[in-house]
Amino acid sequence: MTFQKNAWYVAAMASEIDDKPLGRRICGLPLAFFRGEGGQVAAVEDWCPHRGAPMSLGKVVDGKLVCGYHGLAMGCNGKAHSMPGQRVGGFPANRSYPVVERHGFIWLWPGDPDKADPALIHQPVWSGNADWAYGGGLYHIKCDYRLMVDNLMDLTHETYVHSTSIGQAEIDESPCRTRTEGDEVITSRFMENIIAPPFWQMALRANGLPDDQPVDRWQICHFTPPSHVMIEVGVALAGHGGHEAPTDKKASSLVVDFITPETETSIWYFWGMARDFRPGDAALTDSIREGQGKIFSEDLEMLERQQQNLLEWPGRNLLKLNIDTGGVQARRVIDRMIAADSAGEAEVTSA
Amino acid sequence: MTFQKNAWYVAAMASEIDDKPLGRRICGLPLAFFRGEGGQVAAVEDWCPHRGAPMSLGKVVDGKLVCGYHGLAMGCNGKAHSMPGQRVGGFPANRSYPVVERHGFIWLWPGDPDKADPALIHQPVWSGNADWAYGGGLYHIKCDYRLMVDNLMDLTHETYVHSTSIGQAEIDESPCRTRTEGDEVITSRFMENIIAPPFWQMALRANGLPDDQPVDRWQICHFTPPSHVMIEVGVALAGHGGHEAPTDKKASSLVVDFITPETETSIWYFWGMARDFRPGDAALTDSIREGQGKIFSEDLEMLERQQQNLLEWPGRNLLKLNIDTGGVQARRVIDRMIAADSAGEAEVTSA
Amino acid sequence: MTFQKNAWYVAAMASEIDDKPLGRRICGLPLAFFRGEGGQVAAVEDWCPHRGAPMSLGKVVDGKLVCGYHGLAMGCNGKAHSMPGQRVGGFPANRSYPVVERHGFIWLWPGDPDKADPALIHQPVWSGNADWAYGGGLYHIKCDYRLMVDNLMDLTHETYVHSTSIGQAEIDESPCRTRTEGDEVITSRFMENIIAPPFWQMALRANGLPDDQPVDRWQICHFTPPSHVMIEVGVALAGHGGHEAPTDKKASSLVVDFITPETETSIWYFWGMARDFRPGDAALTDSIREGQGKIFSEDLEMLERQQQNLLEWPGRNLLKLNIDTGGVQARRVIDRMIAADSAGEAEVTSA
Repeated sequence: MTFQKNAWYVAAMASEIDDKPLGRRICGLPLAFFRGEGGQVAAVEDWCPHRGAPMSLGKVVDGKLVCGYHGLAMGCNGKAHSMPGQRVGGFPANRSYPVVERHGFIWLWPGDPDKADPALIHQPVWSGNADWAYGGGLYHIKCDYRLMVDNLMDLTHETYVHSTSIGQAEIDESPCRTRTEGDEVITSRFMENIIAPPFWQMALRANGLPDDQPVDRWQICHFTPPSHVMIEVGVALAGHGGHEAPTDKKASSLVVDFITPETETSIWYFWGMARDFRPGDAALTDSIREGQGKIFSEDLEMLERQQQNLLEWPGRNLLKLNIDTGGVQARRVIDRMIAADSAGEAEVTSA
Repeated sequence: MTFQKNAWYVAAMASEIDDKPLGRRICGLPLAFFRGEGGQVAAVEDWCPHRGAPMSLGKVVDGKLVCGYHGLAMGCNGKAHSMPGQRVGGFPANRSYPVVERHGFIWLWPGDPDKADPALIHQPVWSGNADWAYGGGLYHIKCDYRLMVDNLMDLTHETYVHSTSIGQAEIDESPCRTRTEGDEVITSRFMENIIAPPFWQMALRANGLPDDQPVDRWQICHFTPPSHVMIEVGVALAGHGGHEAPTDKKASSLVVDFITPETETSIWYFWGMARDFRPGDAALTDSIREGQGKIFSEDLEMLERQQQNLLEWPGRNLLKLNIDTGGVQARRVIDRMIAADSAGEAEVTSA
Repeated sequence: MTFQKNAWYVAAMASEIDDKPLGRRICGLPLAFFRGEGGQVAAVEDWCPHRGAPMSLGKVVDGKLVCGYHGLAMGCNGKAHSMPGQRVGGFPANRSYPVVERHGFIWLWPGDPDKADPALIHQPVWSGNADWAYGGGLYHIKCDYRLMVDNLMDLTHETYVHSTSIGQAEIDESPCRTRTEGDEVITSRFMENIIAPPFWQMALRANGLPDDQPVDRWQICHFTPPSHVMIEVGVALAGHGGHEAPTDKKASSLVVDFITPETETSIWYFWGMARDFRPGDAALTDSIREGQGKIFSEDLEMLERQQQNLLEWPGRNLLKLNIDTGGVQARRVIDRMIAADSAGEAEVTSA
């Protein structure tokens, strides 16, 4: 197993699950998501105990997921609730998984249900805060989720992959610093007295600031398990304190990355941006989402081809340079979490 | 082996094989079909003994199948007949298979040729009967052929898969009855005093009958080996005897399903409808074919996704409810036939 | 291994590698081709030693191949040259391969670099000769490269695969003669006093000759290792000496085939035509390329389907008729070359 099981993963944007079920594989598990009574989301194995059809091809009736083949109705707990003309008491139940709707996402716990404490769900800074707005999207990428963690914990790739928007040579030239705080890994880079690249010039203009003046730029990447990366990014007019500059001297936001394994070599990548300026401006949210979507789509080919190369040369080691420290430390946390999963399972077995 | 070898399968509609050969895999065998002298259809391994090219890429000249690569000409018996500039007497022969054109179809016997008695070919009620007309089509579906047998022997799926045409809740609510007569399995369901669903309302109008009156509806599914399912379907104005009602009080037809394994997990599905009213009305035949084609295409995704799910969870058992009795009994007949194949082979081996 | 390693293969047309790198698999090796300082072409493993990304997704800067992910710059020798903020002295080097640009192609030597003598590169008759012109193209075909060698060493296939352009029954009817000169295999066929097929009628007209007179036609196929086939083809007005006829009585050219394994079951097929008339007529070169491209595309389906058939029936032998002698002899040369590769490796191992 290459991913942590006892953890909350983003399985979907809340808006993806409406009155119809959603079939999606998460951490190797084929699941059917649907809204039961009162709109509460449930996740059950995507299998009808009657004839093996995918439940996600069915529909939701009165809070039950009804198989689209012969009408077996299943409750949120995965048990057959009813079926026309049948007594369902003896039917085998589907496994159901802990699932919570929070912060605009559907969170899934693929591991031991007894440990699925909703208090462990990632708490985004923007959620429930009227000063902030959030917009984002979803990409499917055929790569190991840890390659995306590596990608986001080493932003020198911006200079090459995103050279026309957020990349600039100064990223490469400025050293980064990585530290670990418990299970969190933080990699930060500060660039002083530089010219902002195109994306940030646009952001400066949007904030009523000049786009041709030297700025201080920062990137502070926060990895937390199982596979979330939040990145504080921004520029301030040079000499006003950079990351600590007053609001009227800077443009900044939070890049949000929830990376969810679909299989060992593919992911659901929930990307987005949160900001604490003009939070009510929906047109701005749309515009930022569109721009970010274009930039982030530039990573897809590189990550998928990198994955193919790793499968082609399975014996080769990757280098771990200082710029890779964030990813290396994040993988250590991941390995520790996976080991804790196994230890927990061993306890259960020996009990 | 999951299918019977000593049996006649529909390999093609007769119209599919004209002056060009047809390459098609049947029961795992890659075959080239063509019309020899006098138009008689032959089936040989789709392999040229010269260089291994598929014979089905060639053409038919004077009743011989001529390889499209270097011109080897093959007879209906699979033996090389001639080749420019070569003596072909010593060439290895292709295996040829018993094949018969009958009832508008090409029938193939993949098993022991000595047992290939054309008298064993399914005798459709409509064939050669001027009171009847037939129209149909062909779908390729990536599923085990037995999933399609199950599908057709349990018509409660109409309520869910075909909800806008032939489905209605009363199918689920009416019990079915299954009986076995020799190798034939018959599942029947009778619904009394109900409102006809859209497809049957249309059929009533086409027969000059009112479409808003209560009707009696019937479905009588006949499975015969290796994998044919004929279904008597119809509605009669309520109280006139249902299935036994006089012709001027009912609309009825015969759904025809010849299900031929391509591989262990894919099929050629020859579907059609035979009727004993307005047999000379070709426009009606076309219209019915188009309507049936649309309805039957609704099964494809369900069956293919069901197949994928069975491969995903190979250890899981399917339920066998009362509605599944037709399929369960049909699979027993199939298993018996496959066992008889093996017994026959054992005899040959020990002889 | 089914192909010779110690040999020069055409890896690309020279025009395919400009200021951007080219990723291409040759003889099973995933390679990145690029032009270093002075435009000299290099070939290195398509792998970045930093994080495994394909180097071919990068760009060329000052004669170095710069990874498009994080900027590692690699020299033509496969060694890391530099990387922003890093000392690269200890980085593992990529393997680089001998590569030579000559005759309008990029030639790669996948084997022992010490044996890579450029003097062994095939010397085309047309190259560097102002009396000749050359035009050609590239096809990717999913077949064992030896199937293409067979194809080109037995031109009776023209009668069937290319029946509307260069095929004619007289090819089948005229015996061929095969001889071996060292590592070269030559199959020749002469047809006297026949009517030219459409392609050659066109060529006669293009040369100002009548197209409705009897001609003598010739085909002389030259196989040389590892997998090149040059074919002298032409027609002369009948009775003027055929292949030896004076220039003003004939139309002739040289069909050029460089067949490069991509994998064991796929090839890069560099096809073309060289001619020694109107060499400066670029429009004629384009017209011939277009015509040849259409004709040669007719082989693709046959070869790919033949390959699939060979995989389907791995135990079956192919016939070796007199028309196949050219291919049979070519494969003997190939086998000898592969054995020589192994012998060389054994020497190295035992040394």
